[in-house]
Amino acid sequence: MEKSNIIAELNALTEHWSQKVLAEANGQQFKVAKGIGPTNWHKHDDQDELFIIFDGVMNIELRDRTIELGEGEMFVVPKGTEHRPVAPSEVKFLIVGLNVTSTKEGGKPN
Amino acid sequence: MEKSNIIAELNALTEHWSQKVLAEANGQQFKVAKGIGPTNWHKHDDQDELFIIFDGVMNIELRDRTIELGEGEMFVVPKGTEHRPVAPSEVKFLIVGLNVTSTKEGGKPN
Repeated sequence: MEKSNIIAELNALTEHWSQKVLAEANGQQFKVAKGIGPTNWHKHDDQDELFIIFDGVMNIELRDRTIELGEGEMFVVPKGTEHRPVAPSEVKFLIVGLNVTSTKEGGKPN
Repeated sequence: MEKSNIIAELNALTEHWSQKVLAEANGQQFKVAKGIGPTNWHKHDDQDELFIIFDGVMNIELRDRTIELGEGEMFVVPKGTEHRPVAPSEVKFLIVGLNVTSTKEGGKPN
């Protein structure tokens, strides 16, 4: 068990929308990622997905509304809920869930 | 499901070492707290406890070493591991686990 520096890990990422696992606790993975632009509509039937923004802005589009998240803001997309994260400019964030969800179906753009 | 502003919630806290639940995801509670000074040695046999520092410094003393956490750093205290958080000056942090652990036995000073 070693500490992680979230800021340094975010700054070291080279690829958009790819998650890197930094820690695990109680079966949850704590992952960093950065993104820019739109992703695809998708949902996770097996898990809630929690976002914490560290730098920039992320708009999480839901079917009935859009959640605009800025630095220091947190939001949970409940399991089974269709969503589409969109970053107007580069956003850096922590994402928490049961496993890496940045597959093509799970949030990466085409 | 509403977003939370972690920074604003941290700044609104009035009591040290008391946890406020902001969100739940996959059975985990995401809680904010602030602290200053030492707490008591304790452990949680039922859960890992994850810390993310948002402002200040927290030294997490373990029996064999001390983990010094600054802003943007994250650490997991594994279940069953004795630990003692100490804040040399006021620290504001996010703490993640199965439930509120800021009982007298679980991290609050006397």
